[in-house]
Amino acid sequence: MSTIPRNQWYVAAYGSEISNELFARRICDEPILFWRTAEGTVVAHADRCVHRRFPLSQAPSRLVDDKVICGYHGFTYGSDGRCVAVPGQTKVPRTARLAPYPVVEVDSLVWVWIGDPALADESRIPRASYLDAPGWTTVRGLEPLAARFSLLVDNLLDLSHETYLHGGYIGTPEVASTPITTEVDDDAGAVYVSRHMDDAECPPFYRESTGLQGRIARWQDIEYTPPCLYKLHSRIAPVGSVPNPDGSDPDAFHVEVVYAITPETEHSTHDFWMVARDFALDDDGVSAFLAENNRTVVLQDVEALDVLERVIATEPAGYQELSINIDTGGLAARRMLARMVGETPRNAPAAPVR
Amino acid sequence: MSTIPRNQWYVAAYGSEISNELFARRICDEPILFWRTAEGTVVAHADRCVHRRFPLSQAPSRLVDDKVICGYHGFTYGSDGRCVAVPGQTKVPRTARLAPYPVVEVDSLVWVWIGDPALADESRIPRASYLDAPGWTTVRGLEPLAARFSLLVDNLLDLSHETYLHGGYIGTPEVASTPITTEVDDDAGAVYVSRHMDDAECPPFYRESTGLQGRIARWQDIEYTPPCLYKLHSRIAPVGSVPNPDGSDPDAFHVEVVYAITPETEHSTHDFWMVARDFALDDDGVSAFLAENNRTVVLQDVEALDVLERVIATEPAGYQELSINIDTGGLAARRMLARMVGETPRNAPAAPVR
Amino acid sequence: MSTIPRNQWYVAAYGSEISNELFARRICDEPILFWRTAEGTVVAHADRCVHRRFPLSQAPSRLVDDKVICGYHGFTYGSDGRCVAVPGQTKVPRTARLAPYPVVEVDSLVWVWIGDPALADESRIPRASYLDAPGWTTVRGLEPLAARFSLLVDNLLDLSHETYLHGGYIGTPEVASTPITTEVDDDAGAVYVSRHMDDAECPPFYRESTGLQGRIARWQDIEYTPPCLYKLHSRIAPVGSVPNPDGSDPDAFHVEVVYAITPETEHSTHDFWMVARDFALDDDGVSAFLAENNRTVVLQDVEALDVLERVIATEPAGYQELSINIDTGGLAARRMLARMVGETPRNAPAAPVR
Repeated sequence: MSTIPRNQWYVAAYGSEISNELFARRICDEPILFWRTAEGTVVAHADRCVHRRFPLSQAPSRLVDDKVICGYHGFTYGSDGRCVAVPGQTKVPRTARLAPYPVVEVDSLVWVWIGDPALADESRIPRASYLDAPGWTTVRGLEPLAARFSLLVDNLLDLSHETYLHGGYIGTPEVASTPITTEVDDDAGAVYVSRHMDDAECPPFYRESTGLQGRIARWQDIEYTPPCLYKLHSRIAPVGSVPNPDGSDPDAFHVEVVYAITPETEHSTHDFWMVARDFALDDDGVSAFLAENNRTVVLQDVEALDVLERVIATEPAGYQELSINIDTGGLAARRMLARMVGETPRNAPAAPVR
Repeated sequence: MSTIPRNQWYVAAYGSEISNELFARRICDEPILFWRTAEGTVVAHADRCVHRRFPLSQAPSRLVDDKVICGYHGFTYGSDGRCVAVPGQTKVPRTARLAPYPVVEVDSLVWVWIGDPALADESRIPRASYLDAPGWTTVRGLEPLAARFSLLVDNLLDLSHETYLHGGYIGTPEVASTPITTEVDDDAGAVYVSRHMDDAECPPFYRESTGLQGRIARWQDIEYTPPCLYKLHSRIAPVGSVPNPDGSDPDAFHVEVVYAITPETEHSTHDFWMVARDFALDDDGVSAFLAENNRTVVLQDVEALDVLERVIATEPAGYQELSINIDTGGLAARRMLARMVGETPRNAPAAPVR
Repeated sequence: MSTIPRNQWYVAAYGSEISNELFARRICDEPILFWRTAEGTVVAHADRCVHRRFPLSQAPSRLVDDKVICGYHGFTYGSDGRCVAVPGQTKVPRTARLAPYPVVEVDSLVWVWIGDPALADESRIPRASYLDAPGWTTVRGLEPLAARFSLLVDNLLDLSHETYLHGGYIGTPEVASTPITTEVDDDAGAVYVSRHMDDAECPPFYRESTGLQGRIARWQDIEYTPPCLYKLHSRIAPVGSVPNPDGSDPDAFHVEVVYAITPETEHSTHDFWMVARDFALDDDGVSAFLAENNRTVVLQDVEALDVLERVIATEPAGYQELSINIDTGGLAARRMLARMVGETPRNAPAAPVR
């Protein structure tokens, strides 16, 4: 049985990835064709010609004047997915239509709805407006992960691993040794995990980017809205500095580390990562440093999680993990994800029925 | 359940591939050993030593004086498959014999019978005598196809794809736009698909080889005798030229494009292709051009069908195609193949019982 | 169902492979972590952190002061497998312990017990003291075999294959043509196969190493104690020479060819090979020759058995082999191995319960 929640919004791409060209990506085990119309709207359809299932993203298929022409026999589709031409006859079968996917482009992200299109509700898309707002600068990337998405959820909900897996980059001894507080908001569909280190070593990632010397106050406030969006509100400040009662926080540096955790298949994941900051906005050196450093950290995770996926593939059934306090947030996230999967009726088809 | 018809003749090799050396090829998921005796006869047996299943085609197995010596323990077999020597004892077990396969070499092709040898009937082998006849020159090749054989049958029965997949080689707009006629002869076990274009663009494949300038009459007459042999009788002539009432056709150029579609496994195929012509018989430049050009076209098909095989591997059960008029011949071929598979008794063994 | 006997000792490594560093090897489909304590004792535990199953052999996991620190979240284990530290809390869960494996280092080999540790009985370890004794010099190696271990057992129990697969190295015509005698000792758990060639060609392997010219007496006395240890007592002497009544044998050269046949998975094997001799003890040229020559022979077997494993993977169910006299020892070994597997209760878990 699938462990991927359906009837959910997922980040399919960065807006900048999609232009007036055919673009394919597998999301939640469904092959999807994306392209941006001449007018600028992103559309998404099943990436299979209705005739003989040739992928429309596959050359010599091509996009001409906002119409997709299949490279095998020339079936031609408009931006609404309807077939407008077939070979050898003038009548086009009424049912010849590519299944459309609801798409929303917001906060520099292209979200796609996986499941029953009738249930797609844009208001449920979690926001991260700083990714695309004045006063912020963002670097970003996308790494392929050969592991199930839940392993990345586990990883990100328990940052004590920074001390060991990312030592010398973002990890210091205080991350593993400082207890966390965890909150679960089932109504909002969110898990919060906080770790406030009031007097901690400053790791290179923040020392180089902020210029802070000496020890720091380092706050990690995680906000995860399953299944897809993970936000780490990171506050870095001189020791002793706290935000003002009105919320202003002039002595601190704020970094929003965002992950979009999108299943590609049951056993692989699109690992979208973004780092937004409210300082040194035009400093290309800081941008380059944060991009390169965070990518290194992400690749350390990718290597470890790829190993875990292979481990799981060969382990005996009924294998038991042992969990401790640091896992509270991760376990809460697992329960939410399990409920989401359970919401799918038992006999649901493996593919969308539209 | 297998989709490969048994109790059928299949092309296993070109005659030129088989000499007085051990030669292995998997046909319909059966590993077969071929070799040509000193007298010139092609023989075929199971490519597994009866002792410990070592492939007799695998070094250091070798052929010495028309006897096959297993490279593992030295079991030795004659051209009839009977074991004539074993190690450590002089008595050879009576049952030590390689299962033999009926083989016929005709029209430059080596045909092998897959199924019950008692049912092998040479008269059922479809012929293509021009492959080996005076007045014709043939070029040929063999490409490995990582796709089930039925995808190649689909492909070849519907040539409208030439316009899209093979544009610039053999495709022109008229192929896709000209309607076809389809005939099914269940008694003869053949499907016929014809497309007569009386005023069409001449594609490079025929322009370069025939020297014809301007538009042409282009006839495509397909004759497919499932499961293995596909013949495309191609007639190229100046616009307005028709054959004489006596069948002579002096102004036309005739090209016989032949495919032998032989399953290697359930998911891979030997794609034998041949192009015979009745003009420019001794022109090596025309031979080289047709060989190179047709190979390019075949590789375009191979690339597309390999993609389709991978698509099928990940698609949900019950996926539905949409068929239109151009598919009439392909659907008829599918029905014939399905009947052939159905003729195999339900409890038939996966391997031949002899 | 597994074909690997459990509740048995297996050679996991050469003693020289294991130092005060983390060392991983999969044995009988179980991932095991080995290391040697500062005091020199080899220890073995499950190679999975109890927390989130990260392999403890995987960087950045590391060994510090005889403690293993997991590279993911820092769980730390002592040499008895007990967890002594976890992140974010001072209390360590009582059940946090790596499953330990009984280990014995003897005769230069590291033996590990696979199965119920309570049943581990050191006295059942078969010995090969010449591997580590004065008066003997040993060369050795380890080759990965992509084939089930029983194929290597078959191979080694029937040396008639030397004539064909290893011609020019250790095979001569007499090996295949000389009958064998086979003895099975069910109480001792051993199979004996002997072939005494009293007047045989001397193969390069022995000609170069002993310096003997002309024909030889060549005795092959196999002693196999399933599942893991195979010993070939090889006696090479001038024709006519026999041991004295007191067992002394001054004119002969003795070579002990030892294999440890350790399943890695159901379909792959650790092929440990050793060649011990009682002559030319300090001659590095002889050592280098025997090591290089025996490795070549082992790789010839590896190539053949890898082929057989692939053959078995695609052959129809119920495939039948044909056995003859030379197979008597191999068939006896198969029966012993089958009984050992049968001793495992039917509902035994796929992994050890400890």
